[in-house]
Amino acid sequence: MQFFNVKTSEELIDELYSLVKTLDSEIIEIEPALGRVLAADVPSPVNLPDFNRSIMDGFAVRARDTFGASASLPAYLKVTGEVLMGETTMLKVASGEAIKIATGGMLPENADAVVMVEDTDYEMTEQKMSPTTPPGDSDFQDDILIEVTRAVAPGDNIVRIGEDVRQEQIILPKGHQLRPQDIGALAGIGILEVAVYRQPTVAIIPTGDEIIPPTETPKPGQIRDINSYSLAGLVQQTVGIPIRFDLVPDNHTALQTSVREALEKSDVVLISGGSSVGTRDVTLDVIADVDGAQILAHGVSIRPGKPVIVAVVGNKYLFGMPGNPVSAMVVFERFVKPLLHWLSGLQQPQWIVRSVNAKLSTNFSSDPGREDYVRVKLVETEDGLMAEPVLGKSALISTMVKADGAVKIPIGVEGLEAGEEVTVFIF
Amino acid sequence: MQFFNVKTSEELIDELYSLVKTLDSEIIEIEPALGRVLAADVPSPVNLPDFNRSIMDGFAVRARDTFGASASLPAYLKVTGEVLMGETTMLKVASGEAIKIATGGMLPENADAVVMVEDTDYEMTEQKMSPTTPPGDSDFQDDILIEVTRAVAPGDNIVRIGEDVRQEQIILPKGHQLRPQDIGALAGIGILEVAVYRQPTVAIIPTGDEIIPPTETPKPGQIRDINSYSLAGLVQQTVGIPIRFDLVPDNHTALQTSVREALEKSDVVLISGGSSVGTRDVTLDVIADVDGAQILAHGVSIRPGKPVIVAVVGNKYLFGMPGNPVSAMVVFERFVKPLLHWLSGLQQPQWIVRSVNAKLSTNFSSDPGREDYVRVKLVETEDGLMAEPVLGKSALISTMVKADGAVKIPIGVEGLEAGEEVTVFIF
Repeated sequence: MQFFNVKTSEELIDELYSLVKTLDSEIIEIEPALGRVLAADVPSPVNLPDFNRSIMDGFAVRARDTFGASASLPAYLKVTGEVLMGETTMLKVASGEAIKIATGGMLPENADAVVMVEDTDYEMTEQKMSPTTPPGDSDFQDDILIEVTRAVAPGDNIVRIGEDVRQEQIILPKGHQLRPQDIGALAGIGILEVAVYRQPTVAIIPTGDEIIPPTETPKPGQIRDINSYSLAGLVQQTVGIPIRFDLVPDNHTALQTSVREALEKSDVVLISGGSSVGTRDVTLDVIADVDGAQILAHGVSIRPGKPVIVAVVGNKYLFGMPGNPVSAMVVFERFVKPLLHWLSGLQQPQWIVRSVNAKLSTNFSSDPGREDYVRVKLVETEDGLMAEPVLGKSALISTMVKADGAVKIPIGVEGLEAGEEVTVFIF
Repeated sequence: MQFFNVKTSEELIDELYSLVKTLDSEIIEIEPALGRVLAADVPSPVNLPDFNRSIMDGFAVRARDTFGASASLPAYLKVTGEVLMGETTMLKVASGEAIKIATGGMLPENADAVVMVEDTDYEMTEQKMSPTTPPGDSDFQDDILIEVTRAVAPGDNIVRIGEDVRQEQIILPKGHQLRPQDIGALAGIGILEVAVYRQPTVAIIPTGDEIIPPTETPKPGQIRDINSYSLAGLVQQTVGIPIRFDLVPDNHTALQTSVREALEKSDVVLISGGSSVGTRDVTLDVIADVDGAQILAHGVSIRPGKPVIVAVVGNKYLFGMPGNPVSAMVVFERFVKPLLHWLSGLQQPQWIVRSVNAKLSTNFSSDPGREDYVRVKLVETEDGLMAEPVLGKSALISTMVKADGAVKIPIGVEGLEAGEEVTVFIF
């Protein structure tokens, strides 16, 4: 058995991408679908709006009747009625006529534009425009003549049938993650349920002879479990559903039992190891023993995070996560997060990543043989936003608590200089 | 009654900030506290770790015994035992001795550094380091002598008591929004519950005579409710709990009843109006009639979003939201979101905003008298990321669906030029 399979992170990412298949889809209501990923294109069943609509308070007119109108040479139109909100109007605009209309009102027949009330001499007190005060279509007060001081072109200040969304138009494509405005648009076209990909379930198995649950008091030589908690939080922030398993000792049979159960219940299994060689050995053996498992990487040229183990079984994925809290989070961000995105159907454009540009506060050297992640704290200064490296061993969770994000130093680069502009990926 | 109180958005923001008080706090478990805001500083009850710990596989030594050691002139040490993972070791290191230790192991008495196994001639096959194979503290095999080929200084390759977190140290401050690593750190120091601010509850009351629920089929002149759905999504993304109320007609009594109920049940009330003057009148009257309500703004110099109405009653806030879907979202981002952050105790640094830099694809003019938000689509090109303005009336929800974000043109600026670097706030 040859397990030494150290890859670059690009190689591992490419291999994961080539293997992964999206999960099944399910039909759910639109409100809980916020943040979920569409499993099919959504064509609109209707035109939105399905009537010509005014988007200003004013008068529905035939545009040609206002041709050439100006403050010095106004056009005169006779107001013959008023459109009531939310009702089908039976009114028609004849030549030389205008019909009072509020924002959102249905354009009467023959009208092709709206003159804004500001462009008339009409004093539209708010009371006068209220639909509760004036009479309806039929019995409008006679003989109101308005001056139009600005010409309109056909289409001005109105939204035509289907101008927002055309019937049959794909309003949202497959693979799109639903945002608040998307939920609003779906409601607007009367779509109340959508097909979305299932959220990936991620089992997290804490292990390590020196690790105890946080509820217990450590004896000298023991420390409380940190990583299964931070990993569960990361899963939750990445469209996934975390399942934290009970802590298991570094024992082949015990870990094997947990891994089998985890593979049944989940799409991705993270074995959150202690940091000892003992843990690493047992984890590797247990992963290698899973029926049909193919080990994709045993070690990756990335720091922190090098000792990660990655395997695939069908469309399920197993990770032996490094024991250092910082390394575990870096491995999650670099490999597990994109995997969860691909499983849940998301083709996330790169710029969706939360990042910010800043200047590096000091020189920083790096081993060109690996991809390096430097934790940084962001500080507002007179010279703009500065990224200050947070020093400290990657065994320290407190360095992640102090840091606001990380700067990536790619493979082949020997370091960065003070004052250099860097992109900080926000945690 | 004088309601004409048009403010700049800076004025309104400053006034809201000066008025708002954080909500009550509650004690909850750490796992569901992800994303919540701490209502008190969290001091650590313990040292982390509470024993000196190795962070490498190797040998615990007295650093002075390795002084001057190199590949050509190694130091020789006698291995007298091995530390078992997760156990209190009773071993002591005497002069000229070394004790085998794995990453995470407890440093024996008198040892002050760890020599990495790579810096010795010891062949540490993974099996040999496994705690299950070799004997315990007492009966280590005699007479192993190792060559140390690199000197270590005191503190090398170990983490000392309290080096990660010191007892009594404030590990997380009041006002901090909990991230995955913070939950991990809390678990690590044995804190299982934290005091966090209550999440603000936001009632959303859709109104408008022309608006119908999305479940119904619109007659000509009617449109389906969009805004209460997009607003509920935005509230959810902003640490808030949305409560969508039933649609009410533009009728003073009906709206007043809903607003009273909403004020009892929530911290913030969004009246999501239709766009007609009728809706605006009724909304303004109902807000003005609330006992003790003070109107902070009736109109803001911002586009889109101008017709917003903002009022305060005690520590509760009422918004008459504009009827245009685009305007409603801009008003939410600019005013309601910071308000929800302040209510929930969050002092969010500016750079946490999801933003990305891009080049504007075309010239864009703006009215210098107001703050302008231009919707843009992001496109990757050979010249880098371009922000292309999404044109279209702000009555169209589809423009928000097409857009990836918005560029702000501040008050006083007449426009932006093609090629100019802009910051795009991602939706």
